Amino acid sequence: MKIRLESGQIIAAETKESIYHAFKDNGIYLVSSCGGKGVCGKCRVRVLEGKSRIESTGKLRKDDIDSGIVLACQAFPEEDLLVEIPEESRLLIGDKIAVSKSRDFLDILIADGQGLLPIVRHVDLELPPPSLMDNMSDLERLKRALDGKGIQLRHFSYDFIASLAKALRSADWKVSLAYTENFEAVSLSPAEGRNKFGIAVDIGTTTIVLYLVNHSDGSLVDVGKTYNSQMRFGDDVITRIIHATEGGGLNELRMAVINDINDLLQPLVEKYEIKKEDVDSAVISGNTTMLHLFWGLDPSSIREEPYIPTLNTFPEWNAGKARIRINPQAPVYTAPCVGSYVGGDIVTGVLASRMHMNPEVALFMDIGTNGEIVIGNNEWLITAACSAGPCFEGSGIRFGMRATEGAIESVKIDPSSFVAELGVIGNTSPVGICGSGMIDAISELFFSGIIDQKGKFISGLETDRINIRDEGPEFVFHRGEFREIVLTEVDIENILRAKAAIYAGVTLLLKEVGLTLDIVDRVYIAGGFGNYLDINKSIMIGMLPDLPIEKFSFIGNTSIAGAYLCLLSEKMRKDAEEIANRMTYIELSVSRGFMDEYMSALFLPHTNLDLFPSVKALYIKGR
Amino acid sequence: MKIRLESGQIIAAETKESIYHAFKDNGIYLVSSCGGKGVCGKCRVRVLEGKSRIESTGKLRKDDIDSGIVLACQAFPEEDLLVEIPEESRLLIGDKIAVSKSRDFLDILIADGQGLLPIVRHVDLELPPPSLMDNMSDLERLKRALDGKGIQLRHFSYDFIASLAKALRSADWKVSLAYTENFEAVSLSPAEGRNKFGIAVDIGTTTIVLYLVNHSDGSLVDVGKTYNSQMRFGDDVITRIIHATEGGGLNELRMAVINDINDLLQPLVEKYEIKKEDVDSAVISGNTTMLHLFWGLDPSSIREEPYIPTLNTFPEWNAGKARIRINPQAPVYTAPCVGSYVGGDIVTGVLASRMHMNPEVALFMDIGTNGEIVIGNNEWLITAACSAGPCFEGSGIRFGMRATEGAIESVKIDPSSFVAELGVIGNTSPVGICGSGMIDAISELFFSGIIDQKGKFISGLETDRINIRDEGPEFVFHRGEFREIVLTEVDIENILRAKAAIYAGVTLLLKEVGLTLDIVDRVYIAGGFGNYLDINKSIMIGMLPDLPIEKFSFIGNTSIAGAYLCLLSEKMRKDAEEIANRMTYIELSVSRGFMDEYMSALFLPHTNLDLFPSVKALYIKGR
Repeated sequence: MKIRLESGQIIAAETKESIYHAFKDNGIYLVSSCGGKGVCGKCRVRVLEGKSRIESTGKLRKDDIDSGIVLACQAFPEEDLLVEIPEESRLLIGDKIAVSKSRDFLDILIADGQGLLPIVRHVDLELPPPSLMDNMSDLERLKRALDGKGIQLRHFSYDFIASLAKALRSADWKVSLAYTENFEAVSLSPAEGRNKFGIAVDIGTTTIVLYLVNHSDGSLVDVGKTYNSQMRFGDDVITRIIHATEGGGLNELRMAVINDINDLLQPLVEKYEIKKEDVDSAVISGNTTMLHLFWGLDPSSIREEPYIPTLNTFPEWNAGKARIRINPQAPVYTAPCVGSYVGGDIVTGVLASRMHMNPEVALFMDIGTNGEIVIGNNEWLITAACSAGPCFEGSGIRFGMRATEGAIESVKIDPSSFVAELGVIGNTSPVGICGSGMIDAISELFFSGIIDQKGKFISGLETDRINIRDEGPEFVFHRGEFREIVLTEVDIENILRAKAAIYAGVTLLLKEVGLTLDIVDRVYIAGGFGNYLDINKSIMIGMLPDLPIEKFSFIGNTSIAGAYLCLLSEKMRKDAEEIANRMTYIELSVSRGFMDEYMSALFLPHTNLDLFPSVKALYIKGR
Repeated sequence: MKIRLESGQIIAAETKESIYHAFKDNGIYLVSSCGGKGVCGKCRVRVLEGKSRIESTGKLRKDDIDSGIVLACQAFPEEDLLVEIPEESRLLIGDKIAVSKSRDFLDILIADGQGLLPIVRHVDLELPPPSLMDNMSDLERLKRALDGKGIQLRHFSYDFIASLAKALRSADWKVSLAYTENFEAVSLSPAEGRNKFGIAVDIGTTTIVLYLVNHSDGSLVDVGKTYNSQMRFGDDVITRIIHATEGGGLNELRMAVINDINDLLQPLVEKYEIKKEDVDSAVISGNTTMLHLFWGLDPSSIREEPYIPTLNTFPEWNAGKARIRINPQAPVYTAPCVGSYVGGDIVTGVLASRMHMNPEVALFMDIGTNGEIVIGNNEWLITAACSAGPCFEGSGIRFGMRATEGAIESVKIDPSSFVAELGVIGNTSPVGICGSGMIDAISELFFSGIIDQKGKFISGLETDRINIRDEGPEFVFHRGEFREIVLTEVDIENILRAKAAIYAGVTLLLKEVGLTLDIVDRVYIAGGFGNYLDINKSIMIGMLPDLPIEKFSFIGNTSIAGAYLCLLSEKMRKDAEEIANRMTYIELSVSRGFMDEYMSALFLPHTNLDLFPSVKALYIKGR
């Protein structure tokens, strides 16, 4: 059976596989925040020809259904189909995922006075061929040559030894030996001066970024980016942990991310004609759950009180064990974690921010699928995770979506006509609303007097921009051909919960160390989301603290930046471990006072307006 | 298709599989020294009913063929068969393989002042369960508890970590941790005080012996013995190395020995109701080729000049990697080797003999499929391998066989009638002749004046005991129903070559250190063969040096004894490594003077009778 697209593309399909999954298998991604479970109602496609079995119509309206619209995840082909994908349903991947270029991290290494010292080192050896007079074993011959260079290896893996005899002879006894900083043999290759490479990978809950790095000069050869295929099992870490505990779920999740990494790497090594054996080290960063899933470790106790990961500091296992398709003996360095909800991505983030080196107190915020906060300096570091939830990435918001083409990223509402002027990524017609758009929208709805301090619609406003539905009122940002794009009162409630969690986290951490906001000299906003964030509007809604705008910096995806640093420098890896050890981890959910802070922060911008002097001024002016 | 035996046993068969192999697959072993290649002519069976395709009749005589005799390895069933296995063709395995009981090796450990210090140690830990106030990761919790005991582990394998969360929780945080002497974590089990076990294995070219040992008191729980199934690929190491270089051959050889070990272990763990997880360490001994094959390492360069093994000192890899079915995390200690032809079996043999501890000079001889010699004391050790070949185990000798039931093990020839009085293992009618029988036979043939100093039949003797065939003369030891049991002039030549290689090796080693035989205080005869050897007769034929009989001791299978010591004591493992390092390995084939020594030793007992004063006396008396 096959599905034909209007573009002429034809893909194979089976009755037991939904259109959504058939598309996904062929690299066609549809907008979906529920991962193809018929819940979010976003993967709408129109079946023009052919019959399909519909399991659920979800939130589709009757006129949609009449016009042939189906939820792709709930439609199973029963014969050949001709399908149209509305622009707003198609998820574009690739260049649209932000990659930080805001700092040249190689400069950090140079500024730090550090040379390159990758996890894997290389030494060229020329062994005298064996003879009856000099008949020691291959391994002893190798060790003797290493002794001559002052190198003593501690461990030889089985696979290294199993390939030793052939490797030495086929290279005519002139070899390049790769070994780890822990003095474990990695591999032998002919000493032809070939370049060696490493990969740094950031496994985000939503996106995966891979850097291919040349070890000889530390240069970034290329970057690969993709969505984390684990999304099909759920948007957030909790849903995925639950899936991991279901039969075979753990392996599914593991292989999803492993395949993503391998799929990112494959075209790069082909493009640059690099042998996989010459990619002989890797650094993996990500949150604690992502790192557990990457290694196939059961994450279930991360989810259950008292929230315990199997481990925070990972031993250096090899790529063969990880199943990533580089040199199977390559050591894989896993970014050290602090606890179940402050992972290696935050540690490498702090590393890349350099806040751990400076005497000034900095606030580091990573607002991604979850929100993690670090406050501190070169003497102390304190951290917490706020259960902000993935709403800023589109989940739980009716028209929520990631910051890709078609996403409303900025909003301006005319306070008299209530007409919204929209900034849309890619300047196309809007498809949904992303995190920065939500923040803008809340701020504008509030300052235009459409919603109150609690986020509730003010009743009795005379406008066709507000629909009153059974579920409650909703604001219409855009009226399109297929559908209106709205923000419901429930959506707004979700967004307020997220922003309140973040702000309460910051306040509580400061309280823990007995300090107040004025001690904070710098605020680093990390994470892909950060790049699109309007600082002012974020302060307006009370998500970010009311500090002078010049104190804020966007530092992009610091997880991949820190992973890249770790790949290249032993000092950076030591620093990362020290950061993880130094950080005091506060479990917010059991912190006295957190719930009070959170409840106070649920208001716009806050119950205590004095905490937001700049907002207060504007607010008083507005009344 | 099936083959029915006279006993009523029915076994499955296929046209593409020889009768020999069909039998073997069902645990019925036939006498064969060529491994089922149609060369040795020993696997004779009689097909009573049914048709089979005969690829070769080998050395069968016409009357044999007429009576239905076939070579089982050359006969392929074409329909159901009824087959008779003559007693002399059936190889009995099991209790007939000698296991040394000559020393209680546990006494050595006690005498040495050594406690038991197995490769794997165990510590009981009771961890406080995690709470929100004490929320470190599982691994950190474990490390903290270990710190409390003063134990710092260096390495945690992937498999250990992958099972950690479950192991801790299912044991309710009260666990017994196993770790290696190198401080690598092995496994966690509930702390219920269960006994832990280890195995010591000697992989001989011909036989495999397994000791199951209780770690708590070092006691030997039980012993398993079997033939090395690699025999079907050839009798000696050279044939097997050649097979290993053929497509898939290496893996076949590896799995043959691995399956043998697993098959030995299975009934023992069942019998004693031991969980496989509780068998958490192993020591493997054997010659260099056997150890390479056990680990699946390409042995090809062992065979080719300059005879280089991949390694002599093996890292401690785990049982999972080795594929032996005990605790997959169990460390496997491989006996250290000296060179391609002096392996771990000789090192553990010296260890068990204790010659490396004593000031008196000892000569250690292991006359198995090959012949290895060590001379030395607590200050020096020198070693060599003599290519004696496997003739003493039956190979290359027309009626040669191993020392199992039906083997002629002693011979006495009446010098007037030339009638041979035979000692047969099991007191049955003789089937063939084993190594000790061959030595007796040569000695008797010589002293009865039937063969001369060169091993040639003296012509013109009037007796029906000598057949004159196209290939040359042969002496008839026994006239049976099916066949005569003879020793041919070619057989005798092969035996003389073997004994000459051994004697020349001893002489040459002594020459290398500038000493003579009178320095030797003790001669240790190791190896299964040793148990049946007649010292006097061996001196008579010039295989063993002419020393007072009280200097000789049989010490049995010292390879398994040494492996057992290594399993239980760190000191013994260190000693083994020191022995391997201290031994000077002489490559006889390139030693100046070896060929002269060998040629002189081809005579009975030697060209220089003065080297054998006791034989000279007898010889002169006899003339």
